[in-house]
Amino acid sequence: MKRFVPLLLLAASTSAVAQVDRTVPPPPGPEPSVDFPTIERRALSNGLPVYIVERPGVPLVTVRLVVNAGSAAEPGTQPGLASLTADMLDEGTTRRTAPQIADELEFLGANLGTGASYDASFVVLNTLSRNLRPALDIFADVVTNPAFAAPELERVRNQRLAALLQQQDQPVVLANQEFASRIFGTAHPYGRPLEGTPAAIRAFRPEALRTFHTTYYRPGNASLVVVGDVSAAEVMNTLQAALGSWSGGAATQVRYPAAPRPHAATRIYLIDKPGSAQSEIRIGHLGVARNHPDHYPLLVMNSILGGQFSSRINLNLREDKGYTYGARSGFAQRREAGPFTAQAGVQTQSTRESVIEFMRELQEIREGRPATQQEVEFAKASLVRAEPLRLETNNQVASRIEDIILYGLPLDYYDTYTQRVQAVTPADVARVARQYLTPDRFAIVVVGDRSRVEAGLRQLPYPVQLVTTTTAR
Amino acid sequence: MKRFVPLLLLAASTSAVAQVDRTVPPPPGPEPSVDFPTIERRALSNGLPVYIVERPGVPLVTVRLVVNAGSAAEPGTQPGLASLTADMLDEGTTRRTAPQIADELEFLGANLGTGASYDASFVVLNTLSRNLRPALDIFADVVTNPAFAAPELERVRNQRLAALLQQQDQPVVLANQEFASRIFGTAHPYGRPLEGTPAAIRAFRPEALRTFHTTYYRPGNASLVVVGDVSAAEVMNTLQAALGSWSGGAATQVRYPAAPRPHAATRIYLIDKPGSAQSEIRIGHLGVARNHPDHYPLLVMNSILGGQFSSRINLNLREDKGYTYGARSGFAQRREAGPFTAQAGVQTQSTRESVIEFMRELQEIREGRPATQQEVEFAKASLVRAEPLRLETNNQVASRIEDIILYGLPLDYYDTYTQRVQAVTPADVARVARQYLTPDRFAIVVVGDRSRVEAGLRQLPYPVQLVTTTTAR
Repeated sequence: MKRFVPLLLLAASTSAVAQVDRTVPPPPGPEPSVDFPTIERRALSNGLPVYIVERPGVPLVTVRLVVNAGSAAEPGTQPGLASLTADMLDEGTTRRTAPQIADELEFLGANLGTGASYDASFVVLNTLSRNLRPALDIFADVVTNPAFAAPELERVRNQRLAALLQQQDQPVVLANQEFASRIFGTAHPYGRPLEGTPAAIRAFRPEALRTFHTTYYRPGNASLVVVGDVSAAEVMNTLQAALGSWSGGAATQVRYPAAPRPHAATRIYLIDKPGSAQSEIRIGHLGVARNHPDHYPLLVMNSILGGQFSSRINLNLREDKGYTYGARSGFAQRREAGPFTAQAGVQTQSTRESVIEFMRELQEIREGRPATQQEVEFAKASLVRAEPLRLETNNQVASRIEDIILYGLPLDYYDTYTQRVQAVTPADVARVARQYLTPDRFAIVVVGDRSRVEAGLRQLPYPVQLVTTTTAR
Repeated sequence: MKRFVPLLLLAASTSAVAQVDRTVPPPPGPEPSVDFPTIERRALSNGLPVYIVERPGVPLVTVRLVVNAGSAAEPGTQPGLASLTADMLDEGTTRRTAPQIADELEFLGANLGTGASYDASFVVLNTLSRNLRPALDIFADVVTNPAFAAPELERVRNQRLAALLQQQDQPVVLANQEFASRIFGTAHPYGRPLEGTPAAIRAFRPEALRTFHTTYYRPGNASLVVVGDVSAAEVMNTLQAALGSWSGGAATQVRYPAAPRPHAATRIYLIDKPGSAQSEIRIGHLGVARNHPDHYPLLVMNSILGGQFSSRINLNLREDKGYTYGARSGFAQRREAGPFTAQAGVQTQSTRESVIEFMRELQEIREGRPATQQEVEFAKASLVRAEPLRLETNNQVASRIEDIILYGLPLDYYDTYTQRVQAVTPADVARVARQYLTPDRFAIVVVGDRSRVEAGLRQLPYPVQLVTTTTAR
């Protein structure tokens, strides 16, 4: 089975290469219009915006609270505050203990999750639509009345510390963290780990979580998304009853630091992982924000470059050279510009050669071998046809609406998905490749067995800097 | 966020404990009848059985081939043969290279996966229903014409070896493997790793995979499941065109070895993992097969014991004692009897106490503190109400039908789910607890820091055996 997971926020797509015969493509059915369901926008009496999608049929409903503050709202000295606050929401409220919350949800057959990303925090409820009312009562309690009790914080803290300990010698984790910190620096929230650091996690007191919650979890700084087997008119009464008395106006807008400066020249950062059978490689620099007007040309360009199994990068490093089981690239698109990353785990003995091939592909799509008309048409067809498979569940639809809310996209954004993809031309792709890929300013992070990879890397025309992380052992 | 993943094949459920106030339960809506969609059974001209579920609405369809042979069909000297064969199916056919397969699927926006369990192998296709015909052409090619080419096998082999290497020092993996081998022995397929061993993976030649495929992948030994936006009448023509000429009668029935003998007495097997912050604990013995008549009483009993967040085991070890972030139990139900397992990752300093509390709960539900009427009613309500949330996607429905096929359940099995759960009485629960839990014959596997846990474990009334695995370092 081919395990190819498209990178980050970018949707999967496809591309063409020489060895694939496209003279007899399979005949697909007529082009689908992506029937993204209509989004109705309402509001509760306290101002909380509500986005409703009616999906009759399966008797389920998803409710997602989107709070406009994630880890980027943390003080730089408190990494992990947003995700720890989210973790603690269902660990007890002023009305229910943690076991009571779990117990009541289970009695209803419902489930509830919480979490935080860089840009947002969220609480999501999945339930039978016929049990929405009692399930929403628990959801509202968790959102508005978390207790942040010290004993529960201790347990969650210990669990988080154990998880960080388990991660700290995983090459994939080391590579991702080092890469993020090299692109953004630790003064920028995108350069710090979402889950926090052991020192910060150890230091948190309940007051810090309570302050984060009070500051940002409020109807004036949040939105509610409801997707499923509900009627918009009827569900508003239920929502109003559960959350209408929640109070709080707009929060101070989260201020993001200025974008980091690019590297003056491409550099290699090497982390030694003795005995490693593979090297984890990350190559890239700053990309663009999610609401950037070049989103769709970048989507198509990256599909061809490294966004799908049959991308240039994957077919080169995997199919042609056999260095890796999968190589890919993508733009992580957030409120502010996230990273562009090309990445793979490669065989140790092919580390140097893999960097060379990555750099070749990143250069050639800019000049020398720009995307062809055929590649562009293929990527567009794939993007349009795969879209309905990514909207099968209520949760998937709710996540898309979260993007609309967080990134200020128009409410009919997905209705125009097909035409936005189809409008991309080969000239657009060539332009964004030249504009947004800058191979002489990359950070290249390699986590691998130094004794076997350093000499090869030093033959490349980039300075090599040995990096010691406290966790790299 | 509470991360509680119900164990193995058992569905999630719930239970009651003293500290949870059930005097004011949330009022749920009327009990849902689980509307499992009607399954139509047909057959192709070559005898391949076809199970079709029409789910109009979202324009998607899932096609799943179920082959009645998984790792239990492997010779004992060839662990990993079934899963490696499945992995190789889409790595090239006699008509298409691996990139062509990926490329054509991506052009259609479709995706395809393959895999193997103990009892079966499978190939699953997800596509727009309007593209079913061309996608099914690729699916049929992958199922019937895999090339098993040597260069592709080398790549898949290397990837598998790298994955095994990465797993070999993970306490969770070590604990699971040691536990399975202690219950079943390596002469039984359930005692061997599904993914194989490094030595076996290194030794496979294409002929072994070809033989496995020829022997078991045939219409007389397989079934096809189709779920989604299709009409049964129309889809049969498409299936017949794609797979009607596939030939092959019944395969030799896979012979399972006799069930292993139980331990004469409860024993502890200790694997040293120096520096580990947690101990992984597995406790259990042989359970029952999936088609066992006591399936539903066992489902309810295990829900109360350890099948859900608010089970006795989890509330004791997690909420009351704070030893772990989650403890659970479950019966892995397969064609033959799988293991019953109670498990947790616990803080190193609480290893001995955790074993004591596990053993207490496993004993008390048998005698001393049998499940109450209230616990049983609660578990049943939760099981029934949560069921629709587990049938949201076409893939989920197709997996349920695979169970019907593999385990010889009646075609209307899920139509009667609610009544089967509701029929369970407290007397049933008490009976199956006494009958299927035998605390004086458990295997107890502990993976942890020997220097910190051994002395405590030796105070328990069970012999402690130090185990050295080649991978335990």
